[in-house]
Parts: sequence; structure tokens; C-alpha cells
Amino acid sequence: MGKVAKVIELVGESSSGWQEAMEDAVQEAHKTVDNITGVEVTNWTATVENGKVNEYKVDVKIAFGVDSNRR
Amino acid sequence: MGKVAKVIELVGESSSGWQEAMEDAVQEAHKTVDNITGVEVTNWTATVENGKVNEYKVDVKIAFGVDSNRR
Amino acid sequence: MGKVAKVIELVGESSSGWQEAMEDAVQEAHKTVDNITGVEVTNWTATVENGKVNEYKVDVKIAFGVDSNRR
Amino acid sequence: MGKVAKVIELVGESSSGWQEAMEDAVQEAHKTVDNITGVEVTNWTATVENGKVNEYKVDVKIAFGVDSNRR
Amino acid sequence: MGKVAKVIELVGESSSGWQEAMEDAVQEAHKTVDNITGVEVTNWTATVENGKVNEYKVDVKIAFGVDSNRR
Amino acid sequence: MGKVAKVIELVGESSSGWQEAMEDAVQEAHKTVDNITGVEVTNWTATVENGKVNEYKVDVKIAFGVDSNRR
Amino acid sequence: MGKVAKVIELVGESSSGWQEAMEDAVQEAHKTVDNITGVEVTNWTATVENGKVNEYKVDVKIAFGVDSNRR
Amino acid sequence: MGKVAKVIELVGESSSGWQEAMEDAVQEAHKTVDNITGVEVTNWTATVENGKVNEYKVDVKIAFGVDSNRR
Amino acid sequence: MGKVAKVIELVGESSSGWQEAMEDAVQEAHKTVDNITGVEVTNWTATVENGKVNEYKVDVKIAFGVDSNRR
Amino acid sequence: MGKVAKVIELVGESSSGWQEAMEDAVQEAHKTVDNITGVEVTNWTATVENGKVNEYKVDVKIAFGVDSNRR
Amino acid sequence: MGKVAKVIELVGESSSGWQEAMEDAVQEAHKTVDNITGVEVTNWTATVENGKVNEYKVDVKIAFGVDSNRR
Amino acid sequence: MGKVAKVIELVGESSSGWQEAMEDAVQEAHKTVDNITGVEVTNWTATVENGKVNEYKVDVKIAFGVDSNRR
Repeated sequence: MGKVAKVIELVGESSSGWQEAMEDAVQEAHKTVDNITGVEVTNWTATVENGKVNEYKVDVKIAFGVDSNRR
Repeated sequence: MGKVAKVIELVGESSSGWQEAMEDAVQEAHKTVDNITGVEVTNWTATVENGKVNEYKVDVKIAFGVDSNRR
Repeated sequence: MGKVAKVIELVGESSSGWQEAMEDAVQEAHKTVDNITGVEVTNWTATVENGKVNEYKVDVKIAFGVDSNRR
Repeated sequence: MGKVAKVIELVGESSSGWQEAMEDAVQEAHKTVDNITGVEVTNWTATVENGKVNEYKVDVKIAFGVDSNRR
Repeated sequence: MGKVAKVIELVGESSSGWQEAMEDAVQEAHKTVDNITGVEVTNWTATVENGKVNEYKVDVKIAFGVDSNRR
Repeated sequence: MGKVAKVIELVGESSSGWQEAMEDAVQEAHKTVDNITGVEVTNWTATVENGKVNEYKVDVKIAFGVDSNRR
Repeated sequence: MGKVAKVIELVGESSSGWQEAMEDAVQEAHKTVDNITGVEVTNWTATVENGKVNEYKVDVKIAFGVDSNRR
Repeated sequence: MGKVAKVIELVGESSSGWQEAMEDAVQEAHKTVDNITGVEVTNWTATVENGKVNEYKVDVKIAFGVDSNRR
Repeated sequence: MGKVAKVIELVGESSSGWQEAMEDAVQEAHKTVDNITGVEVTNWTATVENGKVNEYKVDVKIAFGVDSNRR
Repeated sequence: MGKVAKVIELVGESSSGWQEAMEDAVQEAHKTVDNITGVEVTNWTATVENGKVNEYKVDVKIAFGVDSNRR
Repeated sequence: MGKVAKVIELVGESSSGWQEAMEDAVQEAHKTVDNITGVEVTNWTATVENGKVNEYKVDVKIAFGVDSNRR
Repeated sequence: MGKVAKVIELVGESSSGWQEAMEDAVQEAHKTVDNITGVEVTNWTATVENGKVNEYKVDVKIAFGVDSNRR
């Protein structure tokens, strides 16, 4: 049987920038998922306060390999 | 590190109406997930029998905060 | 309360064809999920080597019924 | 041979609300079509007069089973 | 009960231009449908021969009022 | 010269339901804009607290006639 | 006047595979429509029972030439 | 600081054709906005009466340069 | 083996109108490509100066037959 | 009555990068609008000269709270 | 500098089936392009004659690695 | 005759970040194409190893002016 991957959707958030927000989401997913292979950003937003960006946010889809004993 | 949220997709169903179908999905998710913050409806359908709506259905995306000990 | 279904996203892969790739994803999901009711293919790709298709891949959404004791 | 369904597109309209507008469209279709099985709303609009909603309107897709003698 | 409209999809074709292709589709629909109220173009294509446009084509959605005695 | 309409985008919010959220947005727009003719909902969300919907929200596009002296 | 085509939407279903589901829909349409020229698949789904695909389903758009005496 | 443009959405209408409908919208916007740089058509419709097109309509997005003293 | 076509994307531009902009793009492609069979417009824009349209622009996809000796 | 927000569309531009282009747009909007709460990027482009990026550009949607005395 | 891939769009056609139509397109591209790595199907159509499918067609995007000496 | 531009699709890749991945694609295109005028990013992904981003990747569309002697 061929390989199967699972895809989950997270929202990352960082005050430093969008790239960091994505990396935070990957790092958080990595705590409970072993074989992350890729990530895609599907939405880019930010919260604003007093005319300045407060938090950068990204919607990400994270793919990881599935083995039968765990998912 | 910034906060991370997870997004899951459910299909709610109710014979009363679409708003109730969405609320059922949120209530069901709340049984196993603590910090639900928001919900988005992405699809609105209904099943029909004898020319009358039988069940209202909604596809929903539900977002909830993730802490490191649980997900 | 009405019924609630959950939807997960997998990527199936097979060297035989796209239909087999989808069936692999369903079979893999079936190992940990009881009540799969349907599947939708949202993306069709293949990897290519030396001008020949190597692996057929499909992104699938798999829906299954949720009962309160398990998800 | 497997079953075949047909899908038609209607616009329902009601002064009471969107759910009623959808139900009007289903009821109207039911006058000439026997086996309606489902409906999907693809667009939600309303006409406005003097700052108040006048008519709620929905674009709906209605599916019904086809038998060979009639369509 | 509110009013209900039906929407059908046609492809118009004209060697004169896209506007004429749309008008041909409306005129053709008018032969069998009485109360056409509007039209929307969803796709614009043309066939080409010897580097020149041969036929302009448009995919159109045509809406018309439905009365219970006819559809 | 033909008539021209303008389209603005608002987000309505209500604790009662989505229809009320849309109507709030129309009512608010009506305070500064005279000739609102229609509204379209493009997005349906809700905020959730303790497993219950807190505020229903809709993204709406509101169209109104423009006359040259005011916009 | 240029030629006009009509487009209808069907859902084909087959236990053999997606290609057969599409061909069933075309064959069913052919019973009442003479000049089918093309078909497009817009959605691919399947129903699942006990972890195995039960019925393959496709949403199809079928185009056919219109002559003035019949539609 | 870099330049900033604003984008507004209008609906133009003309009995002559779609191109004229777009030009009407630009001309109307030009009465109150100085630096229009471009326009994009996102939707093409027409109203129909007695099987003939009555008014051509276009949804347009109009972009114009912003300076700090005015907007 | 079946026939294969290639699809390229161009942007046509004309001060006369959108139809001419599309025809310019086809004519330009025809200089280096022999067997153009069709064209699709995917985007309609215009540049504006002093409240008047300056240049009409279209994004087009142009398809042409491929033979093995040339591409 | 619930709260209402307004959404406007701007295009930001910066020679430093996309994040700066978005921040320029927010800053410019902040000059005339008080309560900006969020921003979403919907399009990412850049102008190029001599093989090097000249200006980074983003299409942004900016949301801000509306009070009845001002908009 | 990182690696760069190029993506081209073809239309494959086969009387045997969609999978074969895709493989024909890949094989044709392989005649002039060395390093094809992947393929994605974005559109599925077929031509029909006398109620039977004549030719299966797929729109495909084909990606291949670029080296500086050739493209 | 108006000006014509061509649009090609590349995938850029960089271990430094998304902006660099886009710039690599532009630079690579610049080796064989003279008059690049703009670039648009349509997809943002990254490969991940051991919970860390390995390569940032962007799908880009690159536009360049066409003159008749070369393309």
C-alpha cells in the first residue's frame, strides 16, 4: 500500500513577522507530530492597535507522514 | 513564542434550522475541546423529503486555542 | 440534538492509479476511525521520473460520524 | 447502471427570512419535480428599501432523482 | 409565497463579437421562456483559425420568473 | 449617462443571530447613506465562549445609488 | 444567428469507478437530449461503507446543441 | 514611505454596452477622486426586457492614488 | 497517442477596446506559433488617465496544437 | 444594537519588502481612520527593473470600528 | 542560490481514459524537457459523440527543474 | 498595434526566506528574458525537516514585454 499523509490546519501568531508566525505553528505541531514534511500558508492577517501591527497571523496547513500505530 | 490555534472541520445537522445545526456542531466539539474561540460556516445544505426540508446541515470550521500539554 | 460528522484531510499515494490512491487513504483512515461515510477528492497530482508517472497522489477529505465517547 | 440525479438552479425570495426563501424555492420546484433529495444555498442577498430589508433572496441548487421516463 | 426565478446556463456564439454572442443566447432562450429578467456572463472564449478569431463564445446564466403553470 | 452605484463592505455583529447582524449593518450604513438598494452576505462567522455562541458576525457588501453631489 | 448550446448539471453514480459514473450520466442524458457535444467533471466524491468505497459519484456539466424547435 | 492607493467598488450601467458601462463608472468616480490610475471589471451582467438587453452592467474596482491631505 | 495542446498566457493591450486587445495578443502569438485553436480571457482591466480610459488590457490564455518537432 | 465595522481596500507599496508595504498601508489609513483593528493581505506583487525587484506591493483589506458620528 | 522550477500548461487527450490523457501530455513534454518532476490535473473534460465519450481530455500543469544553460 | 506581454510560471526556492525565493525566481528568469516588468506570488509553501523549515518555496507568475523578434 502507498504512503498516506495527514494534513492539519493551524493558526500561527507572532509579534515579529509572518515568517515567524508560520514557524511557531510548525514548532507547536512538532511537539505532538513526528514526521512533518511540509507547510502551506493559506491566509495572511494581522491585528492592529493604535495604527501599528500588533500580531502577525497565518493560517497554515501542515502535512505529516502517517504510520499505522499512531495518528 | 506566540499563541497557536487549531482549526477542525465538522458537519452539524439539525431539523430546526441552520443556526441550530451550527450550534450543535460547536456543542459537540466543546465536549472534547476546551478553548473554542470561533466558528465559520463554509457550506449550507439541507436534505429534502416529500418537498419539505428534513435536516439543515452546515459545514463549519471551528478554531480553538492550543496549549502544549494537550492536542 | 442532531448528528455531527467530522472531516479530516489526508493525502493518498499509489503507483497504480488515482482511484487506488484514494482507496489507500480511506483504508488507512479506517484503521483508527469507525464510521467513515464519504470521501471527496480536492486535488490530483503525480510525481514523475524519467518521463513516466511514479506515484499518483490525491488530496482527500474524509467524513465520519462522531459519537460523544470518541473523537 | 447507477442512479443519476439532476441539479437545477433557482432563486427563492421571501419577506420573512432566508430560510423561508429557500423553502419557497424547494416548494415551487416540488410542483413539477418528484424526487427532490437535497438543496444547497450558494448565494445570500436581500433587497433594501428605506434602510430596511424588503426581500430576502437565496440562490439554490436543487438535486432530484431522475428516472428514464421523465426529465 | 414569494416569487421564484429559475436560472439556466447557455453558451452563445457569434462571429461578430462577445456582446452579440450573449444577445444570441438571450434571444434563443426567449423563444421558449417568457419572463427573462437578467443575464450574467461567466466565461469568455473564442475559437481561432489562421491567427484570426473565428467565433466569439460566452457562457451565460439566464434568469427568468417562474409561474406555477409552466416550467 | 447611465446610473452608477457604489458598493461598501461592512461587518455586522449581533448576539441574536446572523439575520440580525446583517440588519444591524444595513441600519448603520443607512445613517450616512441614503439610497441603499441591496445587500449580499459573503462570510458567516461567530465568536464562541464556554462552548456557546457569543456574537454572530457577517461580512456584507451594501450597494447604494450615487448622485453627483454626494459620495 | 450563431449557434447556441445548453448546459445541464447531473450527478452520475457507479460502483465501478469515476469514469463509469461520468459515462452513466452522459448515457442517461442521451435518452432525452440529442446533440451532446461535451462533458466536464466539477466534483469527485464517493460513499464509503465499512472502510470500502461503495459508490463513486461525479458532478458533471453536459453541453448539447440547441435547435429552435426543441429544448 | 512608499505610495498608497485606495480601491473602491462601483457598479456602472449603460444601455449602449459593457465598455460604456465601465466608462460611466470611471467618469462618475472622477468627479470626486483625482488620481484614478486603473480599473478592473469583476462581473458582467445585463437586465433583459421582452427578450432584449435593457441595461448592460459591470462591477468595477477603481484604484486611485492617495495623498495624506485627502481621502 | 492522442493529440497534445500547449497553453500560454499573454497580456494584450489596445487603446481601442478589450476585443482589440485580445485580438492583438492572438496576432502576436501567431507570429511564432502555428496552430492556435482558441483563446480565453481571464482578466479585464484598463489604465486610466485624467478620468478617461487610456489602454484596455486583457489577460488571455492561448491554446495551440503541438507537434513533436516543434515547441 | 451590535457593533459594526467597515472594511476598506488599499494597495501598499515599499522598496524594502512586503511586510513594510502592508505597514505603510495601515499607517496611511491610520491618518484618517481611528479604530483600525485588523488587516488582511489578499495579493502579493512586485514591480521589476533590470532583473531586480523595484517595489513590493500588497493589496490589503483594513477593518476599523464604526461609530455613528463618523464614517 | 536555490533551485528554480518552471511550470507549463498542456492539454492531454486520449480515447482510452483520463489517466492516459495525462500520461500522453507528460510523455509529449518529456520530448523537449529533461527534468520533469511532477504534474497536476486542473480540469477534466471529454468530447461526446452519439451519446458516447469520444476523447478524454485533461488540463495539466507540468513542473520541471531549470538549469541555467537551457530553458 | 498595442503592446503584448507574456506571463510564465516558475517555482522559486530558498533556505533564507520567501522573499529570497521569489527574488531567485526573478533572477533565474532574467538570464533568458530581457524585459521583466512584474511578478506575482500565487502560492506560499515550505518543506520541513525535524520540525524546522528547510526550504521556502513560492509559485510566481513573471510578466515580461514581448517584441516580435524574440519569444
